[in-house]
Amino acid sequence: MKNTSEIKAMIVALSKLDTKAMYLNDFFHTWKESDDEIAAVFQVAEILRAMRENNISTKVFDSGLGISVFRDNSTRTRFSFASACNLLGLEVQDLDEKVSQIAHGETVRETANMVSFMADVIGIRDDMYIGKGHTYMKTVADSVAEGYRDGVLEQRPTLVNLQCDIDHPTQSMADMLHVINYFGGVENLRGKKIAMTWAYSPSYGKPLSVPQGIIGLFSRFGMEVVLAHPEGYEIMEDVEKIAADNAKASDGSFRKVNTMEEAFRDADIVYPKSWAPFAVMEERTRLVEAGRFDDLKDLEKKCLENNARFKDWTCTEELMKTTKDGKALYMHCLPADISGLSCKEGEVEQSVFDRYLVPLYKEASYKPYIIAAMIFLAKFSNPSGKLDQLLDRAVPRIL
Amino acid sequence: MKNTSEIKAMIVALSKLDTKAMYLNDFFHTWKESDDEIAAVFQVAEILRAMRENNISTKVFDSGLGISVFRDNSTRTRFSFASACNLLGLEVQDLDEKVSQIAHGETVRETANMVSFMADVIGIRDDMYIGKGHTYMKTVADSVAEGYRDGVLEQRPTLVNLQCDIDHPTQSMADMLHVINYFGGVENLRGKKIAMTWAYSPSYGKPLSVPQGIIGLFSRFGMEVVLAHPEGYEIMEDVEKIAADNAKASDGSFRKVNTMEEAFRDADIVYPKSWAPFAVMEERTRLVEAGRFDDLKDLEKKCLENNARFKDWTCTEELMKTTKDGKALYMHCLPADISGLSCKEGEVEQSVFDRYLVPLYKEASYKPYIIAAMIFLAKFSNPSGKLDQLLDRAVPRIL
Amino acid sequence: MKNTSEIKAMIVALSKLDTKAMYLNDFFHTWKESDDEIAAVFQVAEILRAMRENNISTKVFDSGLGISVFRDNSTRTRFSFASACNLLGLEVQDLDEKVSQIAHGETVRETANMVSFMADVIGIRDDMYIGKGHTYMKTVADSVAEGYRDGVLEQRPTLVNLQCDIDHPTQSMADMLHVINYFGGVENLRGKKIAMTWAYSPSYGKPLSVPQGIIGLFSRFGMEVVLAHPEGYEIMEDVEKIAADNAKASDGSFRKVNTMEEAFRDADIVYPKSWAPFAVMEERTRLVEAGRFDDLKDLEKKCLENNARFKDWTCTEELMKTTKDGKALYMHCLPADISGLSCKEGEVEQSVFDRYLVPLYKEASYKPYIIAAMIFLAKFSNPSGKLDQLLDRAVPRIL
Repeated sequence: MKNTSEIKAMIVALSKLDTKAMYLNDFFHTWKESDDEIAAVFQVAEILRAMRENNISTKVFDSGLGISVFRDNSTRTRFSFASACNLLGLEVQDLDEKVSQIAHGETVRETANMVSFMADVIGIRDDMYIGKGHTYMKTVADSVAEGYRDGVLEQRPTLVNLQCDIDHPTQSMADMLHVINYFGGVENLRGKKIAMTWAYSPSYGKPLSVPQGIIGLFSRFGMEVVLAHPEGYEIMEDVEKIAADNAKASDGSFRKVNTMEEAFRDADIVYPKSWAPFAVMEERTRLVEAGRFDDLKDLEKKCLENNARFKDWTCTEELMKTTKDGKALYMHCLPADISGLSCKEGEVEQSVFDRYLVPLYKEASYKPYIIAAMIFLAKFSNPSGKLDQLLDRAVPRIL
Repeated sequence: MKNTSEIKAMIVALSKLDTKAMYLNDFFHTWKESDDEIAAVFQVAEILRAMRENNISTKVFDSGLGISVFRDNSTRTRFSFASACNLLGLEVQDLDEKVSQIAHGETVRETANMVSFMADVIGIRDDMYIGKGHTYMKTVADSVAEGYRDGVLEQRPTLVNLQCDIDHPTQSMADMLHVINYFGGVENLRGKKIAMTWAYSPSYGKPLSVPQGIIGLFSRFGMEVVLAHPEGYEIMEDVEKIAADNAKASDGSFRKVNTMEEAFRDADIVYPKSWAPFAVMEERTRLVEAGRFDDLKDLEKKCLENNARFKDWTCTEELMKTTKDGKALYMHCLPADISGLSCKEGEVEQSVFDRYLVPLYKEASYKPYIIAAMIFLAKFSNPSGKLDQLLDRAVPRIL
Repeated sequence: MKNTSEIKAMIVALSKLDTKAMYLNDFFHTWKESDDEIAAVFQVAEILRAMRENNISTKVFDSGLGISVFRDNSTRTRFSFASACNLLGLEVQDLDEKVSQIAHGETVRETANMVSFMADVIGIRDDMYIGKGHTYMKTVADSVAEGYRDGVLEQRPTLVNLQCDIDHPTQSMADMLHVINYFGGVENLRGKKIAMTWAYSPSYGKPLSVPQGIIGLFSRFGMEVVLAHPEGYEIMEDVEKIAADNAKASDGSFRKVNTMEEAFRDADIVYPKSWAPFAVMEERTRLVEAGRFDDLKDLEKKCLENNARFKDWTCTEELMKTTKDGKALYMHCLPADISGLSCKEGEVEQSVFDRYLVPLYKEASYKPYIIAAMIFLAKFSNPSGKLDQLLDRAVPRIL
């Protein structure tokens, strides 16, 4: 646990990062943020965590709402967002907007304003349909920004992307913060190999935003980023291009391989996880929009049959032995499909999963702090000054 | 934005109003409140808003619950109530009481007490059935008042009517505060003409409480209040009588006309909105109580057919031109049925609606403050003293 | 109402009780707690109540979550838990875990950790299936204790049993605190007779945890505890044994009789309430586990038919006359099945119930404070010191 003077030092380091553009702004995709901004999110997350560990309150809001919109069930993300809001003093109110995929812009704009009169932040998870999630978030964010400019809203509610069809920034950044701590600092990541690989699951249509988020972020740290998947399980080309550009800029590498074996070989980190092919997700969106639910069933059936051809894409003890010193860090966003436990055949062997239980839980534990950091940086033009103030007043979290 | 000394002056003005009878009391209908009490709600709402704009916390409760009971889906009212409670420091807990229309008094009394051990306020929306909503609210309010007297409850939870079958005071008062600000002060309302008119909608059974609330409140300010609707769309006679009496007392007028054209002519404000005829709403209640759901469908069909005869009752650009200088203030409680946007033919032309978007959103923005003011006045015997205290301590809302 | 110096005296009395083992511990069953620990829960509950009555804030948490898990609908317990959390400064987040009866340990463990990163307390109600509720609670409590030890969680979320298949400690302790106050002190309970008796209800499968909780707790105070039920309505033998042992240790008595008449005779307290036979509850669990829902219907039918043989087991005015001076304290956990009101024939005559309405509501009013006391004692190693601190700082609950 860090002590107060260590926290002071962390705040000084934060003060050197340029976060001006984050103030009163939204967080959509990690690749829209500068290196300083990404570093600031990690730094603020660590500072908030260190303060909480020292029983120092980080409640910067005396009142105010955090609006959450979840298009599908999401216990974990819901609790992460609620925890982040509570940590800063915001009260969560859920907006139930199940049908809004088909809602036209006008309705979204009106509802966004009507619920935001006292909202400081809006968190949205909408990852189900290609081309929809990000669009919906953008519409909401633009609507309330306009409401603020027009004097309808007294404050600018900023948006945190809790998972869209393109990126899952709170997940990838929590994952990366876990990696940074696991390897003892961001400076130790250079040259480390991460294998982001597809893995078999008996379910269908898992979002692409996790693998996309991982390659889009991890490629910024000079690492050797390897993406592997069976033929047909392509992700969005745009994001692959971003990963390639990032790798170049950071003196790392990004490449695609065709087997799990090749990806795992000498890897420092492995992230085996199922996802649906981009083309299937696109087709699915078209069918849902057209109301062709019978065809949707056919698509699911076809897709599951296709998946079944790749049951050998699974994270076994044998494969783990081929990683660096046989002990790569195994990662997953949870919940995982565990062979013989949650399903007959899945993404990972039970003995591998069980061995990494504590690291996996720790990986997840960063998410509330990452979300809180994103909110914090959007709300304060001088975040290090504000954190200093919190540290100095030292209100106890528990009396 | 008002500064601190302007807020001080507003508090001084408030201190001259007699609000004694509001203390530990419920807010059912605007016409049960004195002129001082109505003025005090507006004043406290404006003061709370000004304080929030100045980043001054208005959290008077360190802990305590605000109970909300919604008999039908209500995103906007739900968020307004949650915002108001949060602004004052109360945590909202929803009570799901869908079936309580048919619950007998004993059950209501028991539940009301059981959920109120730490409740400071109860907000109820129950507007669906004639003769039911207000009755239910009265039962709840009486039950907890009795619980307080009997020593069961340590505090008196007061009730805020978030819409009943008779009145919709938080809506009409938010609307009126919008009008007051729009025309630059309550003193400028004398002689202004408001047209509260029925308008066509492809839906059926919209509550009467909005038009009733509007004529019941707006008639108190010396205005020319005109109610227009097709034959058969009568509202409650009792409320018309209240409007007439109010108009007389305030040196204004209240009259009914038979066409939208006549109502709109030279109007300063227009409020075109659909509602169901009182007689139909009564019949509907009887059918629901008797469980005659087939007859209910017939009633709906008949009512929609009847509605369709009055599709020309719609707010067009042409009609707007006939208002005072062609630019009356267009009002609506939202959501509106917008022709060509949310429905084929509805209450208002899209171009009219779009032109008034910002004023409409501002109109809605007063509701959380109106609700907070109602709670505030029910909780403090000396509201101006308490607001002074808040202003002086000046705890920041955001650190 | 107690004044500040009386509260001081209560805190001094508390300081003499040994509550060390409660710190960072869970509350499962009253019989797992020492006499000092039971006394401390009552004392802290009374102190928190007295402080609130004196408008002194008891908010010890500046931020933090209270997780609630309810396996079936539960308005009252939900509000009691929410009130307790709010009183201490925790924000409630509901975890919807309807299907977790059949969830295997691994999933429970993962979810318990995933939602608890900022949770200080977890309240669970799971009373539906014999052998399940307590097991589930134990799994959750062990999982987060392990998460805390492993460094996954920064704080130890402690568990409060809000009703399991075996005990209902928050109910029985609220009931007992009501009895203590009714009779003017715990020292006056010695020799008092309480009749915990089965009563007829037209419903089936009510949990055993209320009668078990009552005999398991009330037998600790030197009282004459009498349990009565028709043949076949046995409760768990283990708990009868606990009651017998308690009675012996406290110089009271515990015995079973076969008629309501015998139980009521000269009783100081009567608690007539329906429950399902243990054997039926066991059979029900087996059928649900096997998915034999047709057989479940048969079981219900058979059970209701059997219940109907004992319609004369009901609390009448006539029976009440046979109690001590004809005015025993009538108790119920609510809601009761009231003959002629909520059902044709039920647990109690309406005139009896109505006569005891205020005491019944007061009985219920202790529950939020009992829950808050359980949380408080699990969170502070020196509870009296912490309460002193609250009393001294004297932050007003309402400004």
